[in-house]
Amino acid sequence: MSNIREVSRAAGVSIATVSRALSNPEKVSEAALKKVYAAIEKVGYRPNMMARNFRAVRAYSIVVLVPNLSNLFFATVIRGIEDAAQQKGYSVLLGDTRDSTAREEEYIRLVETRQADGILQLRPHTPGKSLEPKVAIPMVSACGCENTPYPSVRIDNTGAAREIVDYLIDQGHRRIGVLSGLVDNPHAVDRLRGYKEALAAAGIPFDPDLQINGDFTLGSGLMAASHFARMKDRPTAIFSMNDEMAIGCLQGLKSAGIKVPEEMSVTGFDDIEFARYSDPPLTTVAQPAEELGRVGFQTLLELIEGKELGNTETVLPYEFVVRKSTPPLKG
Amino acid sequence: MSNIREVSRAAGVSIATVSRALSNPEKVSEAALKKVYAAIEKVGYRPNMMARNFRAVRAYSIVVLVPNLSNLFFATVIRGIEDAAQQKGYSVLLGDTRDSTAREEEYIRLVETRQADGILQLRPHTPGKSLEPKVAIPMVSACGCENTPYPSVRIDNTGAAREIVDYLIDQGHRRIGVLSGLVDNPHAVDRLRGYKEALAAAGIPFDPDLQINGDFTLGSGLMAASHFARMKDRPTAIFSMNDEMAIGCLQGLKSAGIKVPEEMSVTGFDDIEFARYSDPPLTTVAQPAEELGRVGFQTLLELIEGKELGNTETVLPYEFVVRKSTPPLKG
Repeated sequence: MSNIREVSRAAGVSIATVSRALSNPEKVSEAALKKVYAAIEKVGYRPNMMARNFRAVRAYSIVVLVPNLSNLFFATVIRGIEDAAQQKGYSVLLGDTRDSTAREEEYIRLVETRQADGILQLRPHTPGKSLEPKVAIPMVSACGCENTPYPSVRIDNTGAAREIVDYLIDQGHRRIGVLSGLVDNPHAVDRLRGYKEALAAAGIPFDPDLQINGDFTLGSGLMAASHFARMKDRPTAIFSMNDEMAIGCLQGLKSAGIKVPEEMSVTGFDDIEFARYSDPPLTTVAQPAEELGRVGFQTLLELIEGKELGNTETVLPYEFVVRKSTPPLKG
Repeated sequence: MSNIREVSRAAGVSIATVSRALSNPEKVSEAALKKVYAAIEKVGYRPNMMARNFRAVRAYSIVVLVPNLSNLFFATVIRGIEDAAQQKGYSVLLGDTRDSTAREEEYIRLVETRQADGILQLRPHTPGKSLEPKVAIPMVSACGCENTPYPSVRIDNTGAAREIVDYLIDQGHRRIGVLSGLVDNPHAVDRLRGYKEALAAAGIPFDPDLQINGDFTLGSGLMAASHFARMKDRPTAIFSMNDEMAIGCLQGLKSAGIKVPEEMSVTGFDDIEFARYSDPPLTTVAQPAEELGRVGFQTLLELIEGKELGNTETVLPYEFVVRKSTPPLKG
């Protein structure tokens, strides 16, 4: 990294002149300005690099790491973050990490060199895979899972999954399929625990054949539906771990000639807006997406302002929403 | 705005020491550093403000103004922008403007004070309402409409709308409803022109009763459906100006007891992923969303690098996608 002394040398002007060119260019002659600008280009000096060594001054911006920008749940969380950030005069730098640790690291380097004050992580923490928090950079998880090793905001994913599966059992179902996320996704881990707890409480043994793992996309829900449809001892209800997969699954079931909800109940998770517009509308868990974003930002701001938070977690309430995709099972 | 001289005065150290504290703090005694940092806080000096007067050095970041972050079409455009930006070492600062000129202005002030190099505008240009481009800040429209007064990237919205309505006419429809955006939305203006051109070419008079204006949301599509359903001389097809409104409309029509597509054809616009998963899947216009973002960024980069582009526009090809929502009209 080049410095102001090199700029001064290359420009053939004093360090004070370079400083003045940076802070008060109107007080510097045009000829000197030209020399300074040319020298800056030549030695590759970037004034904003200063911030690297300069934590006493805030940048008033944060970086949000988003695993998937096309996921409407995250879009809503981001809206909450932006609202809270704007109120406090902070700008939001968005990084679409596509679930890649390498891309996350690039964005964190960005924070180090570009004067952002902290990071809001929307990907849940995966031990041994996710980035660990660094002392130098305040970091908060705004869509947390259990056992996040830094401050997090989340809902009770296990409890919400248990409530949905309890409800399906109450509606008369005993064979309940689970359309999970990938096995190492921490939200999938928490929600699968809830599914198993609900089955156990009702005395229903867990059948691994009834678990199909997607990746939270519409397409993976469509694929999973064809697996469920081909099963010899088909489930009568499917608990999907997000709405996108549930909506993809609805279409796959219909294509396979299975009537929803008459022959198969389907539930989602998140309550994205499309969940109300699917056919049938989805029974689901409404996450307080905007609120997760807002509280996530407020927590990050406390860290930025120097509070010690350890691995505090804030658990926000969710809402269980019953729609037409889950009528009572006809015996 | 305070300057480095005031910091020097408040700290009781030379300007050169302040410069050094900023650029090479390891060469400054801890006592002097403390004085400088305290003085910076006291006088409210921000090193990144320097960039204001300092266009010769790039920030390597851009700001994207997004009218609605929950719109999946924009999420995909942003993904294209991020891809192209990352390849060139640029970071993307995202501003959710919620269709508000006031919020756009706040973000533009941000660009002026926070060293972003340019703006990608995703809201189409509305004469007399939208921000005009400023000489000091390179700006490009990545979801342009006709007659944008600065460089833009877009599809032929008029032509695409004409093609969809031509197709509906070929399928046998004569009474075709149009579910438009708000009257001053430039995309709605361009697409309405295409709708009218197709009707005129087929000798069908334009009936203003068949035009209902929504706001590109699912909810407004739902509302529009109830208007269409209650019409005495109901249309047999509806051309919706985006997929979200079309999907909302599908649900509204079904709730009103109208069978889709048997009694009513519905078409969308954009080809968001949900368009394939609606029931029935939507005939629509596939916008090259990621490509709009990529080319938008490349165009902005040319401006940042000093090219004069005037109000050049790049028109990218769209694709007309036929799905099950538009069978031939049964006579």
